[in-house]
Amino acid sequence: MGSTEEKKTNVLLIGSGGVGTIVAYGIDYVGKSRLDIVVRRDYDAVSKKGYDIDSCDYGQISGWKPDNIFASTDAAGEQAKASGLKYDFIVICTKNLPDVLKLEDVVAPVVTEEHTTFVLMQNGFDLARPFFAKYPKNVVVSGVSHIGSHNHNGKVKQTQQDRTYIAYFENPNLGPQIQEQKTKQFISIYSNDKNSCGYYPSAKHNRYMKLVYNSTMNTVCALTGVDTGRLEYSGGLERISIPAMREVVAVAKADGVDLPDDCISHAIHSDDGDWFTPSMAVDVQKGNPIELEVIVGNLLTVARELKVQTPTLDILYELLRVVQFRLKENQGLISLPEKRPIHDKFWS
Amino acid sequence: MGSTEEKKTNVLLIGSGGVGTIVAYGIDYVGKSRLDIVVRRDYDAVSKKGYDIDSCDYGQISGWKPDNIFASTDAAGEQAKASGLKYDFIVICTKNLPDVLKLEDVVAPVVTEEHTTFVLMQNGFDLARPFFAKYPKNVVVSGVSHIGSHNHNGKVKQTQQDRTYIAYFENPNLGPQIQEQKTKQFISIYSNDKNSCGYYPSAKHNRYMKLVYNSTMNTVCALTGVDTGRLEYSGGLERISIPAMREVVAVAKADGVDLPDDCISHAIHSDDGDWFTPSMAVDVQKGNPIELEVIVGNLLTVARELKVQTPTLDILYELLRVVQFRLKENQGLISLPEKRPIHDKFWS
Repeated sequence: MGSTEEKKTNVLLIGSGGVGTIVAYGIDYVGKSRLDIVVRRDYDAVSKKGYDIDSCDYGQISGWKPDNIFASTDAAGEQAKASGLKYDFIVICTKNLPDVLKLEDVVAPVVTEEHTTFVLMQNGFDLARPFFAKYPKNVVVSGVSHIGSHNHNGKVKQTQQDRTYIAYFENPNLGPQIQEQKTKQFISIYSNDKNSCGYYPSAKHNRYMKLVYNSTMNTVCALTGVDTGRLEYSGGLERISIPAMREVVAVAKADGVDLPDDCISHAIHSDDGDWFTPSMAVDVQKGNPIELEVIVGNLLTVARELKVQTPTLDILYELLRVVQFRLKENQGLISLPEKRPIHDKFWS
Repeated sequence: MGSTEEKKTNVLLIGSGGVGTIVAYGIDYVGKSRLDIVVRRDYDAVSKKGYDIDSCDYGQISGWKPDNIFASTDAAGEQAKASGLKYDFIVICTKNLPDVLKLEDVVAPVVTEEHTTFVLMQNGFDLARPFFAKYPKNVVVSGVSHIGSHNHNGKVKQTQQDRTYIAYFENPNLGPQIQEQKTKQFISIYSNDKNSCGYYPSAKHNRYMKLVYNSTMNTVCALTGVDTGRLEYSGGLERISIPAMREVVAVAKADGVDLPDDCISHAIHSDDGDWFTPSMAVDVQKGNPIELEVIVGNLLTVARELKVQTPTLDILYELLRVVQFRLKENQGLISLPEKRPIHDKFWS
């Protein structure tokens, strides 16, 4: 950790799961920032004992703590207000479930308008739109992380190197200079000799590239209960995922992004050699809500705006909305009457 | 049971689950037939102790046995050959899984060509096609059963009255007279004062009507893991199943069958008041293979022949093929190498 004098940048990181904890530790390792963390589920454990980390990048770490640990953004906001602190960066590493929780509202107590830069280290596409609507003059940075790291009951195990692409979501209300400057500033407080954290010229391009896999293979695996290997063996890759990939490429093209010719081949070969179960399928297995809106819903919003047909993705989305309904009900987020009511809607 | 003199018709019934056992008992109750049963899973139990039946139609029955019980069609065929017996009717009440087991091959040892009439008391559409291909001069009768009856470990419990519509699948190699005659002969050995078994003028019409529900609500429930009530609440009924229903109606129309205007409304209201889990979704829950080919695959074959577009059903079918792959693997019908091989197909 750098000396107090050097720690000029105020950072609040939200969500210290497998990825968030490694990002937080990386920022602390660089030592240019005062770092606070908001953590909900594991608050009691980590506020007492700190974090235990077994990292392929940073080694064995026991009882590590940032400057402050808060149970909520409300708590962080109160202390910031009391001490006159303005967060320069809010780094969000939570799951992204806008149909369950609106992150632009969650962060409201800790934001300084026209000052705080958001860093969205999350899955999904077009994530900045609700932030631009609520905070039109703030910069929103995109972090696309390729990392193998999991939080098992408060112990974080990182098995694959942290490779992160950093870009900015283009805010139409701000010029490119300030956005690029903030983005590079974030890289300067995070990039170090252990990780691989680079500037990516276009968040949109980067996010479309990820969607070629996530909205087509991740989704179909989630619906059908197979890994990506069995998706290939069963023919689903060829007959559902690849047509869906072509739709992603078409939306990107209409959106001014020419994805490389080999992007479909690249997605298909991502898990070569592994019977790999992707994130959304893991969530379904565990009974957790899925990141459907940011992985498919936001893409379809753009497709509709640009009048691109996406027949395969449309049905995958609608089917997964039914799955999401079930997952939310299982988590107590939806409740239904014991006796099924009889409706007489338009089809009666 | 009628006296031996009256029992002029030789019947072999295959598959004595919840439906098959009640059909068998009904045929025996009428008393015009010599009745043999082929039963695989419960053979040891029922060949010793007979069937225990708790039936809303026939009451409490203990230790009932038909004339013979066989473990296979091979065993039935050997005995028939030895005694010079020709089966007049082969009534098939098994699940219909042509991608697992071809029933037209299973019955080969017990068929007399140009003589035996098949009665397919099974779910699905266009079931006679493989029988016509293999036995071009035999009649194939369609039985669409609306019955609530389940086999729990060899004890059959029937909770809803047996209402069965009997028709024939139009065999292009035979005239209507012989087909209608065999169909009505089957009704005469089965229909009785306890059940409700009527002649239906068109098997095709009858089967299309069932598909309006089965290929659209049963399938989506199977994919998403919800009952038909939750399908409605989540919006999936409106956004996936109803568009799929319109596709079924369009295929039927191109196939010369005008379904009634209220057929969609009728399907939607089938389970009114119940949080009902349909058969295919139950099979997925239990890990059993699904009747995908006869409920969707055969319909899509006809749609392709008639050049009708079925974009929703196509994707439901392809997704459920992936689910079927998983279910078959879980049952040991497919095995995969421990290490996932790397393929370089056309997308390499």
